[in-house]
Amino acid sequence: MKILVINGPNLNFLGKRETGIYGTNTLEALNDKIISVAKEYNDEAELDFYQSNSEGEIVDRIQQAFNNYDGVLINPAAYTHTSIAIRDAILSTELPVVEVHISNIFKREQFRRKSYVSDVSVGVISGFGINSYFLGIRGLIDHILQTEK
Amino acid sequence: MKILVINGPNLNFLGKRETGIYGTNTLEALNDKIISVAKEYNDEAELDFYQSNSEGEIVDRIQQAFNNYDGVLINPAAYTHTSIAIRDAILSTELPVVEVHISNIFKREQFRRKSYVSDVSVGVISGFGINSYFLGIRGLIDHILQTEK
Amino acid sequence: MKILVINGPNLNFLGKRETGIYGTNTLEALNDKIISVAKEYNDEAELDFYQSNSEGEIVDRIQQAFNNYDGVLINPAAYTHTSIAIRDAILSTELPVVEVHISNIFKREQFRRKSYVSDVSVGVISGFGINSYFLGIRGLIDHILQTEK
Amino acid sequence: MKILVINGPNLNFLGKRETGIYGTNTLEALNDKIISVAKEYNDEAELDFYQSNSEGEIVDRIQQAFNNYDGVLINPAAYTHTSIAIRDAILSTELPVVEVHISNIFKREQFRRKSYVSDVSVGVISGFGINSYFLGIRGLIDHILQTEK
Amino acid sequence: MKILVINGPNLNFLGKRETGIYGTNTLEALNDKIISVAKEYNDEAELDFYQSNSEGEIVDRIQQAFNNYDGVLINPAAYTHTSIAIRDAILSTELPVVEVHISNIFKREQFRRKSYVSDVSVGVISGFGINSYFLGIRGLIDHILQTEK
Amino acid sequence: MKILVINGPNLNFLGKRETGIYGTNTLEALNDKIISVAKEYNDEAELDFYQSNSEGEIVDRIQQAFNNYDGVLINPAAYTHTSIAIRDAILSTELPVVEVHISNIFKREQFRRKSYVSDVSVGVISGFGINSYFLGIRGLIDHILQTEK
Amino acid sequence: MKILVINGPNLNFLGKRETGIYGTNTLEALNDKIISVAKEYNDEAELDFYQSNSEGEIVDRIQQAFNNYDGVLINPAAYTHTSIAIRDAILSTELPVVEVHISNIFKREQFRRKSYVSDVSVGVISGFGINSYFLGIRGLIDHILQTEK
Amino acid sequence: MKILVINGPNLNFLGKRETGIYGTNTLEALNDKIISVAKEYNDEAELDFYQSNSEGEIVDRIQQAFNNYDGVLINPAAYTHTSIAIRDAILSTELPVVEVHISNIFKREQFRRKSYVSDVSVGVISGFGINSYFLGIRGLIDHILQTEK
Amino acid sequence: MKILVINGPNLNFLGKRETGIYGTNTLEALNDKIISVAKEYNDEAELDFYQSNSEGEIVDRIQQAFNNYDGVLINPAAYTHTSIAIRDAILSTELPVVEVHISNIFKREQFRRKSYVSDVSVGVISGFGINSYFLGIRGLIDHILQTEK
Amino acid sequence: MKILVINGPNLNFLGKRETGIYGTNTLEALNDKIISVAKEYNDEAELDFYQSNSEGEIVDRIQQAFNNYDGVLINPAAYTHTSIAIRDAILSTELPVVEVHISNIFKREQFRRKSYVSDVSVGVISGFGINSYFLGIRGLIDHILQTEK
Amino acid sequence: MKILVINGPNLNFLGKRETGIYGTNTLEALNDKIISVAKEYNDEAELDFYQSNSEGEIVDRIQQAFNNYDGVLINPAAYTHTSIAIRDAILSTELPVVEVHISNIFKREQFRRKSYVSDVSVGVISGFGINSYFLGIRGLIDHILQTEK
Amino acid sequence: MKILVINGPNLNFLGKRETGIYGTNTLEALNDKIISVAKEYNDEAELDFYQSNSEGEIVDRIQQAFNNYDGVLINPAAYTHTSIAIRDAILSTELPVVEVHISNIFKREQFRRKSYVSDVSVGVISGFGINSYFLGIRGLIDHILQTEK
Repeated sequence: MKILVINGPNLNFLGKRETGIYGTNTLEALNDKIISVAKEYNDEAELDFYQSNSEGEIVDRIQQAFNNYDGVLINPAAYTHTSIAIRDAILSTELPVVEVHISNIFKREQFRRKSYVSDVSVGVISGFGINSYFLGIRGLIDHILQTEK
Repeated sequence: MKILVINGPNLNFLGKRETGIYGTNTLEALNDKIISVAKEYNDEAELDFYQSNSEGEIVDRIQQAFNNYDGVLINPAAYTHTSIAIRDAILSTELPVVEVHISNIFKREQFRRKSYVSDVSVGVISGFGINSYFLGIRGLIDHILQTEK
Repeated sequence: MKILVINGPNLNFLGKRETGIYGTNTLEALNDKIISVAKEYNDEAELDFYQSNSEGEIVDRIQQAFNNYDGVLINPAAYTHTSIAIRDAILSTELPVVEVHISNIFKREQFRRKSYVSDVSVGVISGFGINSYFLGIRGLIDHILQTEK
Repeated sequence: MKILVINGPNLNFLGKRETGIYGTNTLEALNDKIISVAKEYNDEAELDFYQSNSEGEIVDRIQQAFNNYDGVLINPAAYTHTSIAIRDAILSTELPVVEVHISNIFKREQFRRKSYVSDVSVGVISGFGINSYFLGIRGLIDHILQTEK
Repeated sequence: MKILVINGPNLNFLGKRETGIYGTNTLEALNDKIISVAKEYNDEAELDFYQSNSEGEIVDRIQQAFNNYDGVLINPAAYTHTSIAIRDAILSTELPVVEVHISNIFKREQFRRKSYVSDVSVGVISGFGINSYFLGIRGLIDHILQTEK
Repeated sequence: MKILVINGPNLNFLGKRETGIYGTNTLEALNDKIISVAKEYNDEAELDFYQSNSEGEIVDRIQQAFNNYDGVLINPAAYTHTSIAIRDAILSTELPVVEVHISNIFKREQFRRKSYVSDVSVGVISGFGINSYFLGIRGLIDHILQTEK
Repeated sequence: MKILVINGPNLNFLGKRETGIYGTNTLEALNDKIISVAKEYNDEAELDFYQSNSEGEIVDRIQQAFNNYDGVLINPAAYTHTSIAIRDAILSTELPVVEVHISNIFKREQFRRKSYVSDVSVGVISGFGINSYFLGIRGLIDHILQTEK
Repeated sequence: MKILVINGPNLNFLGKRETGIYGTNTLEALNDKIISVAKEYNDEAELDFYQSNSEGEIVDRIQQAFNNYDGVLINPAAYTHTSIAIRDAILSTELPVVEVHISNIFKREQFRRKSYVSDVSVGVISGFGINSYFLGIRGLIDHILQTEK
Repeated sequence: MKILVINGPNLNFLGKRETGIYGTNTLEALNDKIISVAKEYNDEAELDFYQSNSEGEIVDRIQQAFNNYDGVLINPAAYTHTSIAIRDAILSTELPVVEVHISNIFKREQFRRKSYVSDVSVGVISGFGINSYFLGIRGLIDHILQTEK
Repeated sequence: MKILVINGPNLNFLGKRETGIYGTNTLEALNDKIISVAKEYNDEAELDFYQSNSEGEIVDRIQQAFNNYDGVLINPAAYTHTSIAIRDAILSTELPVVEVHISNIFKREQFRRKSYVSDVSVGVISGFGINSYFLGIRGLIDHILQTEK
Repeated sequence: MKILVINGPNLNFLGKRETGIYGTNTLEALNDKIISVAKEYNDEAELDFYQSNSEGEIVDRIQQAFNNYDGVLINPAAYTHTSIAIRDAILSTELPVVEVHISNIFKREQFRRKSYVSDVSVGVISGFGINSYFLGIRGLIDHILQTEK
Repeated sequence: MKILVINGPNLNFLGKRETGIYGTNTLEALNDKIISVAKEYNDEAELDFYQSNSEGEIVDRIQQAFNNYDGVLINPAAYTHTSIAIRDAILSTELPVVEVHISNIFKREQFRRKSYVSDVSVGVISGFGINSYFLGIRGLIDHILQTEK
């Protein structure tokens, strides 16, 4: 089982800026912890990681996931609310996708309530800090295992 | 650590009706599985369960949770979208609350997009089937443990 | 053929208050007339009656109709416009439901135009005074007979 | 007692097209059945029938009903949602009008939710197939009889 | 100078129905009075009159006015609010048009606030009873005289 | 019969600025012409004139019209769209008011479509240049004469 | 003169939770003070008190007030914004109702701006802390006394 | 303790016009009664009164209240719904303000639902006739006394 | 292969009015050119032409196309934006329909953005002048040929 | 080159109230500094200053600027969002106008987003504290110099 | 004559994914067919092709088309609905642009109804499958030829 | 003091296209002039310049400004209205940002009224042509100097 973890714009700043909100884990440290959770939870899951600030590059990477991965864990960050291109990439690969958010997007600006990704995802997890990723990787692996049956 | 699990209207029909969508687990079976997950994950967590079709009774129960529980896992079902009374009960107890949904509410009718509970919750999990509860109990326990520190 | 007739909030005041608008028939008298119409129209139809001012109790009663009744005639009154819980109860029982209103709801406040029940009902009858119930019971019985074939 | 039954655009296709939805009754067969119901129900009721695809002709016909009929049973079809002219014709004749729809318009496109006719009608019946007409003719005759008293 | 006076749907009922609101003048009597005002005011003005309940026929008639008339006085009645076809006919003839209404449309239903004709007319007169026509014919003749200079 | 003619903000610039649009008549010249029209039309009508750029002063002046005038001809200009205070002043005096506009407000910015005055006026005239005032004074005098009967 | 004081959901927590906002008065203490104000102000006024978290029970209680009370003082709390059933109960009893709120609801979330109760009440008082009740009981007693005359 | 009572546009007509609605008390008589209530209620309160139909003059007067008064009782009338300038004046003086309305603004036109003043006031009282002022002066004095402590 | 070409209101004025925008081709000349394109492109295609200013007549004509034609090329003009009746006629015949517009409707008034026909058509072509018809006839013939396979 | 600097309602309180936000500069001190900037920047520029809390007086003053000034620097404060009269005054003088705001209006209440002045101004400067005036006077002088060429 | 054909995000997947909807033609095969149509139709037209998933790169490419191409055929895919940058690039090059869509965007999600490109294009073609490109290349070449004259 | 000047999409075309609107200054010439203004104004300010048509690259560049610059002057062009990613980058760097626009965006299409950047900027300058940059650099340097104190 191969899973691609994608992080959208500004998440490369994780642990470097606004640590009061997002904690002191860098994106690299976060990725290592996701691997730990995945391994502990399902020993066969292999994970790759990708981060970009560019909508087009994220679309490219989702397309490349087609035939090469069994699922995608994505935090589209700002593109959650503005990118139909990412939505269409998810639709065309037909891979199971889980959407996660570090902060609770329902507590923030009104324009963060709209997501172009949620209704083409398996499920959505929002508000648990970096724990959202750990819960998300579990939800995604379980979904892949159940669907395979 | 004591946690109250609340299920809103029509969830007593789980496993009895629309099993194609919701699976064959009854609410009782689901509750047992949540206990298993919680125990395995955090041995000290005690769970109580409550289901009601009445908005007022759910408000009563949330109020009683004050001083008696450390957190609430809730699937408010239809009341998610219509009950300011449940929102106010959550606000007044100041308990950490995690909101879960079996189906992905973003794939359904437009009126299910609005939640009076999400922005007064720690976080929201939607779309993973009954796995939403298992992910939710983990998210809630982690949150309580971190806050206690 | 068993049919459950449900009346929502404030309909227990029928014939007691605002008789200029609603006439002098009490709810009991209305129920007797519905029985008469049903009997005359279809001798085999048995009817039970339920009224409540509580959304939760109406949800309970609709759930109990599952496996026990062949159809539901409902005047959800104020809950027509605010209750997703009743909608979900109707959806989960999958019973044929006919929605009736004594007054013509399209002549009243703007917020009475929205119904959470209409699009999960067989049909809707509004504006004929208590005759709405008599037309509704006919519409429901006909629907059940046709579907049985 | 004289009643005019008006059918709006495309209802001349009844029983000829989309029979899966609307059944195999032609408009002529439907009209005959309405006569049967009316006669059986109220022996004195005389019925005339009119169908047109033209908004203007329907306005003409409603005007002619003034002084010549005691009530109008109308299925305005598409003009339900767009014609203020038909609304104004109903208002100016001051005849009692009952609005019927074969399908449940609340289950269809959003733009079919708006009716310019409903709030100037006695009542509305929607969703019972051609039975909507039979219930409607009863509702209209009852209304005329009650008003005469 | 030749002027065409067009009356939209239901105005053929003028003086026959709702005389409490619209007075006892029939459309014919009104037309005679418009001629009187026009003659007294501008002796050279010739007037023709047209009324129809059909949107398409009104479009036809406006088209025929092209090259044959110097201006149009129109009360589009219900089509004021729904007909883009009449708007387009006015636009294509490029004739000066004055829009009049017997009642004050701003005192009525919200949907009567929208006019597809007003912004392609010279001017609008609303609320003076049948006097709106007399003021309108003056406004139109003055406009034609001024434009000719 | 005494009539007060009120002009709102910036109309003191009439004939001085934007003469391409509004012509070369100053407000004084316009007032003289309105007197001419009124005298010719109804010899007994006396007219007073008032212009102010201040909402509050216009309210004051409308109040003073109470018991002293038989009607008001008003071009509220910009305050048409923003002043509820002027609306309330009109309502409290219960004097017949006619609203006029030089330009066709329906051809201009969207925010000029809303009028707080129209639905508390006898009628509205818009788009005939300064002729709007002449038509308006006729409409107002006719209205007063008819109401007196 | 008999008056019923109704408190909606979560007001049983008064003085127990969020005392920084709502003060340290419990609901019982508040009720005693309302009695004091009423007695001092109008010696004949008798007061009964009711609190419930259930919309249906509040509807029941309002109905029972019919024929037994002269007026109702109500803080509908969260149901202010969501309950048409309570509105309908008030309408059907035709009792004078005064609506009060402890906090200034206009300073809070947008959804608290809408009230289903305000336009069927005598008057509304919002923002004076528990003093809102004392002002409200005066407003209600005065209203009853004036109406009796 | 010094309090300024401000009345907005058209309230100088109180008791002179529309006495059926507003009663026969003139503004002067009302002011005397407010003094009586204030004196009886709190012997130390001194009151000044101001009325203007001009938004700018009301802004001036609110500014002058700074450092000279302990609170403001205001009925902004029509400016409630249109004046951000009055709102800003209230904000800049930081004086406690109580907003009152004679009629129940929630029973009137939709545009009277919006208030620019409510959310910068201590509290709002609407619908008790001139009693709104008497309740308001009490609410304001109590607020000042409590804040002083 | 038989195709019906329908032109809506005011298109009979093509080449006669506003030639600066629409060119000097009359509707007859346009029709001849459509025949030329069709013949050259697909020698077997037979074309009939129909134009009407009446919504009802266009509905009639679309109905008559049922069983007699293989497809419809339509420029509904103003009825594009207002006619649900034409939409329903297209739906009931189930013929492939191609919608064309001479001007680019997206460059015009906001109300021309809404089309009741587009989502029940095969495709839409807008903005190419009369070339829109030539492209449209090709698109329609290709569609029919492909569907036949 | 003569320039008029206009300040709208409540700006006479500058430096006297809310000094934490607006600083300790009074309006007089600000004006002196604007003169300094203007002189230093363009020695020929003469400046006059005007402040009023009244919409009507500001309209008066803008009108008087016609023929007497080469440009206007304005901070319309609250009237930015509500005054069409000021907009119309600017339009009628055709003077170049620069709109400035001390605070960043995009960070404040939603209703401050709308400006009736911005689209009839040369340009807008918002958020730089009193520096907005200094930048604005430069922008205005540059604009006048460029236009003169 | 040189034409640039641009395909937006996810169109590189054409013929590889969702072949049930989009057919088995790859983008390369489609491009060859567009060349064939263009050559057959207008022997002098040279075509270049570009596809990118990146909004910024598409903007770059449109800019490079300036001075090098005579027109652009574009399927902006997801960026149709979200990219003002592409719109601005089209505006700045002032090249004639034809917008095409494979699917009928009016049959899809509501957010696909909005296009930032349509009103700056010559014309729009939507819904004919890959035939949209063939019709589009014809429409574009014809437009260039006509404009050259 | 180091400042980064960022220009968004299509601004590389400055001085090359649409010179009637934007003048004949290229971006390079503009940058030189900004340096001149900055130097003249504050001799210590060093400026770097960046332009990109890609949202993602602009996000990258803003992130790199963190710790390396004291402020950012940005003209986000089309991304002003669509990019939450740029907003989030500004938020995460916490650098002072000044937003400038060459044209007055309030005079243009409605969709240009919305800015995702304005409320996270120090201030906004719009409409002064390239002078907007010169005013902006002054506003930014002043802000940095004041904040440093």
